[in-house]
Amino acid sequence: MIITVTLNAALDLTYTVPSLTPHATHRVTEVAERPGGKGVNVARVLAALGHAVTVTGFAGGATGGTLRDHLARTPGVTDALCAVAGATRRTLAVVDARTGDTTQLNEPGPTVTPDEWAAFLDAYDALVRGAGVAAVALCGSLPPGVPVGAYALLVRAARAAGVPVLLDTSGEPLRRGVAARPDVVKPNAEELAELTGAHEPSRATRDARRRGAHAVVASLGAEGLLAVTPEGTWRAVPPGVVRGNPTGAGDSAVAGLLSGLVEGLSWPDRLARAVALSAATVAARTAGEYDPRAYADTLPKVTLTPS
Amino acid sequence: MIITVTLNAALDLTYTVPSLTPHATHRVTEVAERPGGKGVNVARVLAALGHAVTVTGFAGGATGGTLRDHLARTPGVTDALCAVAGATRRTLAVVDARTGDTTQLNEPGPTVTPDEWAAFLDAYDALVRGAGVAAVALCGSLPPGVPVGAYALLVRAARAAGVPVLLDTSGEPLRRGVAARPDVVKPNAEELAELTGAHEPSRATRDARRRGAHAVVASLGAEGLLAVTPEGTWRAVPPGVVRGNPTGAGDSAVAGLLSGLVEGLSWPDRLARAVALSAATVAARTAGEYDPRAYADTLPKVTLTPS
Repeated sequence: MIITVTLNAALDLTYTVPSLTPHATHRVTEVAERPGGKGVNVARVLAALGHAVTVTGFAGGATGGTLRDHLARTPGVTDALCAVAGATRRTLAVVDARTGDTTQLNEPGPTVTPDEWAAFLDAYDALVRGAGVAAVALCGSLPPGVPVGAYALLVRAARAAGVPVLLDTSGEPLRRGVAARPDVVKPNAEELAELTGAHEPSRATRDARRRGAHAVVASLGAEGLLAVTPEGTWRAVPPGVVRGNPTGAGDSAVAGLLSGLVEGLSWPDRLARAVALSAATVAARTAGEYDPRAYADTLPKVTLTPS
Repeated sequence: MIITVTLNAALDLTYTVPSLTPHATHRVTEVAERPGGKGVNVARVLAALGHAVTVTGFAGGATGGTLRDHLARTPGVTDALCAVAGATRRTLAVVDARTGDTTQLNEPGPTVTPDEWAAFLDAYDALVRGAGVAAVALCGSLPPGVPVGAYALLVRAARAAGVPVLLDTSGEPLRRGVAARPDVVKPNAEELAELTGAHEPSRATRDARRRGAHAVVASLGAEGLLAVTPEGTWRAVPPGVVRGNPTGAGDSAVAGLLSGLVEGLSWPDRLARAVALSAATVAARTAGEYDPRAYADTLPKVTLTPS
């Protein structure tokens, strides 16, 4: 079983409008609603790949209830979210049907109290020490009230339990989390530059590894992945430019890396899977889902180059 | 007791963002949530004026549950909404903190099935025939699935029960509703022009009355109200221009007219109250609420002119 942690889970809404005009009134022609937050997205892809996943983090209020109702209807996913008094945030993507462009509005999330955080730490510790836990993914931003060193604590608890741990976050929570020596971090180019101060990807990736992570997998958009691992260094590149919506492509890459780790795949095979899942997510009609046919089609065409 | 009908009730959300830029990602700095839809807004003002109000219409889904939780916490308001399988719509106002401008995104609302509509008609008929019903307000747009002649049916049922009925809607539902001879209709200038084809307010108001309404009260924004009634014709104008947010000003005017009718006030006194409540709503800090001090201050200063 794989655990994904989403401290700032969300109810993701997508509104389609004929054309977005500031200061005007719009009739929304299409409303889509689904559970969100990076760890929840990773869990959905892992479940689709056939892995049992347990989702934890925080949920509260009516929006949290709706999120949990959605999770209860997702096969392969077990809900182990901890209740908080505040309401789970909404994120809203407004899609302009004319141009296809998206405008994003993200609520900040509930303020987590010290008692709620302490209760989560206990529940998390029990989860990672449970039977049959193969890996943990720690994903996304921190809600208000959660200490900035949160991910460092969660990385150490997983390592103490002997469970491989992947970290996907940004800013100061990433900086502190990396120092706790996670097995894998997966920054994008911007997060990597912010962490290391270096803008050249291969230099920045090596630098990030020196800060404590056992392996660093940098996601470079259309240029694929750059991985610096104990087994070697690779670039993994998709076959040609994929057109579509990049929402969730990074989360699909995390699911690819994590499922590959749990299945005992080599690093090149894990990277190929991560790149193919990313490309199949960009190509999918629904934002954040992946297209299984595009995945099967892309997987053998990913180029792996040792570097 | 006053009944307000909101067939397309809503959960009103207000997001404050530092500055709204299409195609960018925004962190929402402030989230406000409250029950909405015109009849619900009218009920809130009536309750604040000391009247017992029963709210009916449709509610469904998690958003409907949240709406009903809010109503349960509103003193003076009784929830008699009918359950539907679809989810209550959200309306979202995005306020640009830099300019103060608002961008509005309105979900269409749940599709009401023929069985749900039939169940509502029965429940409504029982409500208006109940003891102590002083007036009914029929407010707002129709959700998908509700027949366009809905308000005509509801006007006739109220009249058959001997209960005064006010209609505040637009387009074809207004056209059909007026023909059923409601006691009062309260169109704004645009709705009045659409109904009658006349753009000159006094001509359009008289024309609307000839179509069946016993009294027509046209709301003309900063120019106040123009009323053509069986007792006479008046203009009611607020003292000076009120700066602020006009959201809900029309609903407050409806509450003023309805409370005045129920209390047996003369038409001039009803109109003065409606204008003062409208102005106090524009002046209020929170969109859709009214400022009681501004109301008390404005009421004696409203100018009534027979015309």
